[in-house]
Amino acid sequence: MSQEQNQDHKWVYLFEEGSGDDKELLGGKGAGLAEMTRAGLPVPPGFVVTTEACNAFYANNKQFPEGMWEQVVEGLRKLEETTGKGFGSADNPLLVSVRSGAALSMPGMMDTVLNLGLNDTTVQGLAKQTNDLRFALDAYRRFASLFGEIVIGVAHEKFERVMDRFKAQTDGGRDTDLKPEQLRDIIAAEKQIIIAEQRGNTIPEDPYEQLRVAIAAVFNSWMGRRAVDYRRVNRIADTLGTAVNVQVMVFGNMGATSGTGVAFTRNPSTGQKALYGEYLLNAQGEDVVAGIRTPNPISQMREELPEVYDQFASIAQLLERHYRDMQDVEFTIERGHLWMLQTRTAKRTGAAAVRIAVDMYHEGLIDRATAVRRVTPEQLDQLLHPTVDPKAQTVVLATGLPASPGAAQGQVVFDPDEAEEMARDGAKVILVRQETSPDDFHGMVAAQAIVTARGGMTSHAAVVARGMGKSCVCGANMLNVDYGQQQASVNGTIVTKGEWITVDGSTGRVFLGQVPTVQPTLGPDFKELMSWADDFRRLRVRANADTPNDSKVAREFGAEGIGLCRTEHMFFGEGRLAAMREMILADGVGAREKALEKLLPLQQKDFTGIFQAMRGLPVTIRLLDPPLHEFLPNIEELMNELSDLKMALPRANTIQEMDRLLDQIDEKRRLLHQVERIRENNPMLGHRGCRLGLIYPEVTRMQVRAIFEATCQVKGEGSDVRPEIMVPLVSVAEELHHQSKLIHEVAKQVMGEHGMTIDYTVGTMIELPRAALTADKIAEYADFFSFGTNDLTQTTFGLSRDDSGRFLSKYVEDKILPDDPFQVLDRDGVGQLVKTGTTLGRSVKPDLKVGICGEHGGEPQSIAFCHEIGLDYISCSPFRVPVARLAAAQAALAEKSGAIAADK
Amino acid sequence: MSQEQNQDHKWVYLFEEGSGDDKELLGGKGAGLAEMTRAGLPVPPGFVVTTEACNAFYANNKQFPEGMWEQVVEGLRKLEETTGKGFGSADNPLLVSVRSGAALSMPGMMDTVLNLGLNDTTVQGLAKQTNDLRFALDAYRRFASLFGEIVIGVAHEKFERVMDRFKAQTDGGRDTDLKPEQLRDIIAAEKQIIIAEQRGNTIPEDPYEQLRVAIAAVFNSWMGRRAVDYRRVNRIADTLGTAVNVQVMVFGNMGATSGTGVAFTRNPSTGQKALYGEYLLNAQGEDVVAGIRTPNPISQMREELPEVYDQFASIAQLLERHYRDMQDVEFTIERGHLWMLQTRTAKRTGAAAVRIAVDMYHEGLIDRATAVRRVTPEQLDQLLHPTVDPKAQTVVLATGLPASPGAAQGQVVFDPDEAEEMARDGAKVILVRQETSPDDFHGMVAAQAIVTARGGMTSHAAVVARGMGKSCVCGANMLNVDYGQQQASVNGTIVTKGEWITVDGSTGRVFLGQVPTVQPTLGPDFKELMSWADDFRRLRVRANADTPNDSKVAREFGAEGIGLCRTEHMFFGEGRLAAMREMILADGVGAREKALEKLLPLQQKDFTGIFQAMRGLPVTIRLLDPPLHEFLPNIEELMNELSDLKMALPRANTIQEMDRLLDQIDEKRRLLHQVERIRENNPMLGHRGCRLGLIYPEVTRMQVRAIFEATCQVKGEGSDVRPEIMVPLVSVAEELHHQSKLIHEVAKQVMGEHGMTIDYTVGTMIELPRAALTADKIAEYADFFSFGTNDLTQTTFGLSRDDSGRFLSKYVEDKILPDDPFQVLDRDGVGQLVKTGTTLGRSVKPDLKVGICGEHGGEPQSIAFCHEIGLDYISCSPFRVPVARLAAAQAALAEKSGAIAADK
Repeated sequence: MSQEQNQDHKWVYLFEEGSGDDKELLGGKGAGLAEMTRAGLPVPPGFVVTTEACNAFYANNKQFPEGMWEQVVEGLRKLEETTGKGFGSADNPLLVSVRSGAALSMPGMMDTVLNLGLNDTTVQGLAKQTNDLRFALDAYRRFASLFGEIVIGVAHEKFERVMDRFKAQTDGGRDTDLKPEQLRDIIAAEKQIIIAEQRGNTIPEDPYEQLRVAIAAVFNSWMGRRAVDYRRVNRIADTLGTAVNVQVMVFGNMGATSGTGVAFTRNPSTGQKALYGEYLLNAQGEDVVAGIRTPNPISQMREELPEVYDQFASIAQLLERHYRDMQDVEFTIERGHLWMLQTRTAKRTGAAAVRIAVDMYHEGLIDRATAVRRVTPEQLDQLLHPTVDPKAQTVVLATGLPASPGAAQGQVVFDPDEAEEMARDGAKVILVRQETSPDDFHGMVAAQAIVTARGGMTSHAAVVARGMGKSCVCGANMLNVDYGQQQASVNGTIVTKGEWITVDGSTGRVFLGQVPTVQPTLGPDFKELMSWADDFRRLRVRANADTPNDSKVAREFGAEGIGLCRTEHMFFGEGRLAAMREMILADGVGAREKALEKLLPLQQKDFTGIFQAMRGLPVTIRLLDPPLHEFLPNIEELMNELSDLKMALPRANTIQEMDRLLDQIDEKRRLLHQVERIRENNPMLGHRGCRLGLIYPEVTRMQVRAIFEATCQVKGEGSDVRPEIMVPLVSVAEELHHQSKLIHEVAKQVMGEHGMTIDYTVGTMIELPRAALTADKIAEYADFFSFGTNDLTQTTFGLSRDDSGRFLSKYVEDKILPDDPFQVLDRDGVGQLVKTGTTLGRSVKPDLKVGICGEHGGEPQSIAFCHEIGLDYISCSPFRVPVARLAAAQAALAEKSGAIAADK
Repeated sequence: MSQEQNQDHKWVYLFEEGSGDDKELLGGKGAGLAEMTRAGLPVPPGFVVTTEACNAFYANNKQFPEGMWEQVVEGLRKLEETTGKGFGSADNPLLVSVRSGAALSMPGMMDTVLNLGLNDTTVQGLAKQTNDLRFALDAYRRFASLFGEIVIGVAHEKFERVMDRFKAQTDGGRDTDLKPEQLRDIIAAEKQIIIAEQRGNTIPEDPYEQLRVAIAAVFNSWMGRRAVDYRRVNRIADTLGTAVNVQVMVFGNMGATSGTGVAFTRNPSTGQKALYGEYLLNAQGEDVVAGIRTPNPISQMREELPEVYDQFASIAQLLERHYRDMQDVEFTIERGHLWMLQTRTAKRTGAAAVRIAVDMYHEGLIDRATAVRRVTPEQLDQLLHPTVDPKAQTVVLATGLPASPGAAQGQVVFDPDEAEEMARDGAKVILVRQETSPDDFHGMVAAQAIVTARGGMTSHAAVVARGMGKSCVCGANMLNVDYGQQQASVNGTIVTKGEWITVDGSTGRVFLGQVPTVQPTLGPDFKELMSWADDFRRLRVRANADTPNDSKVAREFGAEGIGLCRTEHMFFGEGRLAAMREMILADGVGAREKALEKLLPLQQKDFTGIFQAMRGLPVTIRLLDPPLHEFLPNIEELMNELSDLKMALPRANTIQEMDRLLDQIDEKRRLLHQVERIRENNPMLGHRGCRLGLIYPEVTRMQVRAIFEATCQVKGEGSDVRPEIMVPLVSVAEELHHQSKLIHEVAKQVMGEHGMTIDYTVGTMIELPRAALTADKIAEYADFFSFGTNDLTQTTFGLSRDDSGRFLSKYVEDKILPDDPFQVLDRDGVGQLVKTGTTLGRSVKPDLKVGICGEHGGEPQSIAFCHEIGLDYISCSPFRVPVARLAAAQAALAEKSGAIAADK
């Protein structure tokens, strides 16, 4: 904007000139005040200096843009007219408050300066006007300290110390006990402090100069460190700018018929429809915040000031009806006159969000689409997990990543075997590990929650915990885990095995001791809201579930099938790992088949349970995927064991003992060699997925036989079973061709043996870039695609989930990446491949069923993307199913946008 | 083809009806005979049953197609007419040879059956006709054993044993010493053997039936195991089919004026222009092959049969002129009459290929384009390395992958330190390892050649060896390497440290002892051919080189710059690894910078040397790329050392010794913890590449400073230096933005300090799918792209180079993949990304320089792809530069095809 244009530009809006739609221009607070003013509510008059002015200020080397100040003065003129008072008037002075207000509420911005306009002269006028010298001096004292602190930047404590010194001289020791002379001394002392700070500024005597400096201070606070930090973390553009609200002062501290308060139009914790809030008589807002006096519940106002209460209650209702959402309102009563100071959409808990959305629909305030849009996925997720009682006293031991929500208490245990053992004996345990691996799975199953010192939001611990709906805190770096000593420490605080801790996976905090938790309840509101969501969404929602129990949970949460059943998790169970190891270490096909025979009935049993739980719904079973050495003991542990055995050798007392040790050493060494032989440098890119089935077709055959035996059994029991067999890690169409031939062969055989015909499909995970790029060729052999976006993200970025924790957080912090791509699907890279794969696949098979089964299947932004590109379904952990249903509905609604409004 | 169509179809061509262009239809041999016949050369009359007939045979359940046999009989009729003989005639019998002949020469196909048409009756006629009973019986004997062996499938040895028995009864013990009665007995015995085999077939008496069975046998041999295997390995389609050549017999064994021979129109070893070959008087072809008598050099024929020799020499010249290429011809002389039996393009060594191509251009036979096309990249590569003397006697110890060409002798050593030590003492060593890692680098430098038991064509050993132009055999699975015993064994054959072996990296063979080798020489022919190639190619050719010495070699081989200088290899040198480890394990920026200060002058020195070697040419330097733990000691080794120290503890004799041990244990344990802390599960996808530079910007700063200090120094010496700084492993544009800002900052600083201005560019490796997919965004910060197709292949396929050896060979074998994608660029997947990346990059910067620096940069098929999609340059190991220059020229020629023919 050129200087000339600036001059004519409108930088200042009186409240009556603006409206609630002008949030970007006037900021949230200004727009709210304008809207209330237009609605005829009692709002102290005022005006807004726009966010444009703020931006122009920065564009103009921190000078007000041409014409702005003149418009501010003109605004003051209007306020003088309306109130009949004079800015700087010695008789009847006009006082104003100055507040920042961006379009989004934002900490770190300049707070309020009250009573601006007071100086040594006007304070006399105020005393005359109110006929209360003490009140006037108290107001001047408040102005001086606020201006000194907020505009000039003197530490709050310095002013407090002055107050404390003077209060100590009074009888009561309270603010209100201060006499006018004392207040005068306080004001003088405060001015001295400001001068002593030598920041070059003192409080100007000229009220206009006061205002000029205060407005500049608001603008400057926009680029203050805290505000900039906040915007960076929350990804808010710097160019948004802040507005400045200048408003005529009203006083809640003018006696027994004055007061101030804050209220919600409904209960923000429960959603109950009733005014909820607090107020204080004869007080200003800062007194409430400072906690000097304890405020009363708003309901009590009905007795104390019944008329004002009724007026307030009806205004609150009016505002809620006007905004069609719960409001958070601030008010002041000046000598019996109610003034509204702010209204905004109220924050609420997950439970409240659901109840309010459903209630408001039934009250006719909003339509179903709005109700569904009103609840955020995060709020819904909150609802599904226990939470730490917010009223509880807590001592935080460590903070990490909020990897899997929910709160849980338990006794610390460091060893998965011990965890299992203690849990078997009825103990509640929390497994604390440096990091977890599939070897720890049984310990994780046994634990109430998992804490790790290493690993990110998609580390093994996080993924498995989310899959089981268990609370988990990951990457608590400060936690020093010492397996040898069986203890964990943080800066000298030591937690030993058996001690109680409480984990809050929703916030990433780990507390010492047993902190009380609150259980979630899913009431009829929840069910009603979800049924509306289901009506709106187009995406089907399935669950990733590996056990009959997971399947049941998923179904209860509304899953429409299983999108990913990982067969490998089944192999970690008791008695299975041994057979699995036997299979892996087998010398040749014969020995391998023998070991597989042991696994067959176990697998079949698992599938039977899952099929029974999911009767009538499709179940996608993925064939064996991970590298084989995941099933083998850890090399370092083996080496340590070997070393221990060797150490024991010289201490052997008998020949027999020595023989026994030597045998053990031999055995251990053999195992070590076998494990070393199989070990890979980059197992993620190694001999896994369908590559296993291609080299060991007998493994595929066993798994497919187990699936079809189970299918025949459950179908024989009269249930509808719909198996979908998924081949993992295909990069070349021929791989799928090879495996699907095997599958059809075994299927035919088993169906023949049982004299049954089963409807089944064969598809593949698309989890490698090459698969997405050649999806047209792959589609020839596939009935369905399921994008495995975890691995696809790993390979597209060349980034290991397990290892990226070390630097990925810094990447997000420094804005190299907008999000952790393992949490939020990367649209530009991975998303492009998902889109390409879908398009290519459907170019060959228009009716190809396409879904996604990575962690992203439960993440709202990623779900929106899946909706946009037209996938058929998403699959996520059972506990994320409701969130996914909601997010899918919101994505569909966002697409239709206005078109749905008629549905109400 | 329907039956009716078949009937009218032409299945049989007389030689005079075909031409040299009909290779596909008539097979190579048939087309050659037809061409010679048309040219009026003396070719025994005959006809060809077409490859179409072979295919129809298989389509028709292994029955001759309708009409074919009738046409064969008709063909015989024509031969009878031409020769005046009768097929099956008791007086003047017509005898024919039956030979297979596909379009491509192929082992495993049915060999020749001679003298077909003989039976107990016609043999009398032949005796009469030739007036030589012995000759007739010998011909019958040959026919019987060939038919028995080749058509019926009796083992050759059985017939040989009969011959041996009878020859033992003669005085001389030679074939020619056998009397007619003995020959009769032999024939009877051979017939007995055939009947005893009970294959249901014996030699039919009816000549027509003999021919029918023989033709069917040729067709059947097309699907024989050896032929199918060969086609699979060489990727020849099964649908090609084989033709059958039926030709009138001529005899080289009818006395002193008869004979047979094979000759090349030039020397196939050296390319010298002179008839080269062998002949035998009074012999049939099989006698020469069987080595029963030693043939004479062709030049001797000039004395023995001067007229025939002259006729043959002029025909040979005619053929060469006709085909414009060196011919490999077979002939027979029957009683002074020369008959041409075959002509085909002759195989030749690399040296011969180059010389012949250049000579033929100068002789006006071919144009330059043809000359350049005539030499295969493999032939050129042969030329650049020593080879095992083909005349040497050898004992093969093991066979692996031909990972890096060339032959070398040396003493076996298993430890890289020892390799270095022995080499320092002047020994020639060959490093034999299970597999190699960067830790072994100094040992590889010291060795003549490298042998590994594990790892594929792109394993560390293979890549490094190719980079150094050292011979290497990889993945010799049968080799059992025992570091403890310092020996390697194969099926009981043990090679101990210090024993001599010879490695042939061109064939993948490892020989016992010192096998003589032949050194390559690059003569003026080579230079002339390469200069022509340079004129034709559009792709620039650079080298991957990390040292001044590599750079010099690359330049000598014609590299037009360095496309990839890997700075990390520099850190493995003496004294550097320690500083590097110090840097990695540094606690905080300060300590890290201190360690980096030690590395700075060393890096600078390396760059100075490289810049001096490459003066005037661009040098692309890649910043630090590999995961840091590559520079740290191996965890297992550390654990073993720790275990040894602990074991030594109880045996300590003095307090001092114990203290010393305890100190060492502490030290070792600390190091172990540090290494464990840095260790990654999937280092390939871990904290490496630019991710290092983002988290440790001081590392980037040090490297960039070293580059610019070196640049200023060399420029100060008056040389033109053109540094191109390449940021590795970018997946997000912001990464490059961040690093390039750093680079420009340091560059400006150093240039300022030296008061110099340097032309330099900043670019990036595109080696991750996401980089290729978002190349338009990345291009904003890049002056050039270099596709790192090694890593791009790994991530696109989700396939680790290091680990895929275990299954990738089976993939190629089973045709799941057409090639090892680490050897030949995968066009459909990886290639698509290279194309997409190039297109997107140039959409933003039309003049973006784009190259490739993976291993594929030296592989002809991949080079052709790079040419097709319009890359600017390829970069490969120094020793592949000539190959790349040639392949680039051939790709350009293939594109222009006919258009270039006028240039001759």
